Amino acid sequence: MQSNSRQVFFLSNGTAITAETLGMSLLAQFPDHSFQTQTIPFVDSAEKANAVTDDINRCIEESGQLPIVICTMGDEDLINIIKHSKALVIDPFGDILPRLEKALAAQHHQPFESHRTVNPSLYESRIDAIDYAMLHDDGGKMQNYDEADIILVGVSRSGKTPSCLYLALQFGIKAANYPITEEDMESENLPAIIRGFKGKLFGLTTNPKRLAHIREERRSNSRYASLDQCKYEVKAAEQMFEQFNVPYLNTTTMSIEEIATKVVELTGLHRVSKPAISHLDMK
Amino acid sequence: MQSNSRQVFFLSNGTAITAETLGMSLLAQFPDHSFQTQTIPFVDSAEKANAVTDDINRCIEESGQLPIVICTMGDEDLINIIKHSKALVIDPFGDILPRLEKALAAQHHQPFESHRTVNPSLYESRIDAIDYAMLHDDGGKMQNYDEADIILVGVSRSGKTPSCLYLALQFGIKAANYPITEEDMESENLPAIIRGFKGKLFGLTTNPKRLAHIREERRSNSRYASLDQCKYEVKAAEQMFEQFNVPYLNTTTMSIEEIATKVVELTGLHRVSKPAISHLDMK
Repeated sequence: MQSNSRQVFFLSNGTAITAETLGMSLLAQFPDHSFQTQTIPFVDSAEKANAVTDDINRCIEESGQLPIVICTMGDEDLINIIKHSKALVIDPFGDILPRLEKALAAQHHQPFESHRTVNPSLYESRIDAIDYAMLHDDGGKMQNYDEADIILVGVSRSGKTPSCLYLALQFGIKAANYPITEEDMESENLPAIIRGFKGKLFGLTTNPKRLAHIREERRSNSRYASLDQCKYEVKAAEQMFEQFNVPYLNTTTMSIEEIATKVVELTGLHRVSKPAISHLDMK
Repeated sequence: MQSNSRQVFFLSNGTAITAETLGMSLLAQFPDHSFQTQTIPFVDSAEKANAVTDDINRCIEESGQLPIVICTMGDEDLINIIKHSKALVIDPFGDILPRLEKALAAQHHQPFESHRTVNPSLYESRIDAIDYAMLHDDGGKMQNYDEADIILVGVSRSGKTPSCLYLALQFGIKAANYPITEEDMESENLPAIIRGFKGKLFGLTTNPKRLAHIREERRSNSRYASLDQCKYEVKAAEQMFEQFNVPYLNTTTMSIEEIATKVVELTGLHRVSKPAISHLDMK
């Protein structure tokens, strides 16, 4: 452990995905600091909460520094055990739930039911979207684009595959992708396979230098990875997008999450199942 | 819109994934209430913040109810605009950042840099994990299991593919999966392809009734989807796991997130890149 690295724990009686997501966003606000993070899911009994509290306290003795604990527990008895540690315990639920209770004129429950048991059909629509993305990756074994919500197009390594998977996993969107080939670039028309689906096409493009770097790691010293080839392909793809009015996005500086969110925003696609909680109507 | 459905907005100047994740966890605490949620990412200018504020206020007039706004803004000027709406505005950053500043004896910045630009190599390890999962899905085109961090095994439709993709996308873990075939079930040994990788195997199993239901939606009235067949396969797979000491998990009531998190917990796998923020040392 680095001496000036602050220890951070993300805790929950569930998956701890909420604690981790919120926690990482908070820590990103302190870019000059170094953090050593640890996510501890399923802290769902007094025994486990006591064991974690001991770990946290031991960590104070070892490092001489106050650890930060970000804890999204639905169970008040468990959070109270953690709060007895000597760390800085941040409990966003404890801060926010009373205000929601007041606004809704209701007490909160502690359901912690699995998403899947609560609403199998919503869950399955997300699984269907994943199946769809897997079958329609990279030009796909099948070309059942009628069912696609969106078809991402772009040159090899422009970010199509991870973006499609994220759209499916997080947003339940059926996303296919089609790689633009050199043959396509030399043609005067949109590739035949996607020509009939113009309204669903969305282009991804990237900086040729960045593309060459990514390709170089896959096929070192190849024509495929050469800067000239990348420049040629990116230019040809962008010309295609312009010529046929395909909306497109330059992904050079974007993360997968940003690409997927931007695509949803720009196309007005409907997120069908991100919440995976039955009683919520998603818009 | 349902008349008794409460309007909820998740806002951010970034992707709004943090606001949405935290918000959905909070709303899940009120299972008897109905919510209509809307996620608005990239609220990154005063113009956009004013437009959103107008939308929120209009929504009060239409529904006669107080909307709930959960807003993770790094920019104080923007959050102040939103706070001028008439809604209940929840600002977790505003509540928590001052406490972190005190603990770290530092002011927070507002970086909002893309993960990708901050640390390309961490980002690429996540992309590599996705590539790996795609190539090694369903027995895979390639069988380069040397590189695998984990190999999920189970009968068809036991949840292997979405779990592998989630492990790759969220945790940067290289997860392959191998479907147990009927031929494998009749053998006295572990399938030859995975036999040499016993330490990396992890089994997924599920309730035969649930499995039959899932398969029925894919291949209606088939032997594949029959309850008898599902019972036979699940029993054979579980016997295989027991016989060869392959740790396994019953996924019947679990979401993808829960399966992936449980697998990481039970195997002690190292999450390499979920944070995607350069200065964080992940444990």
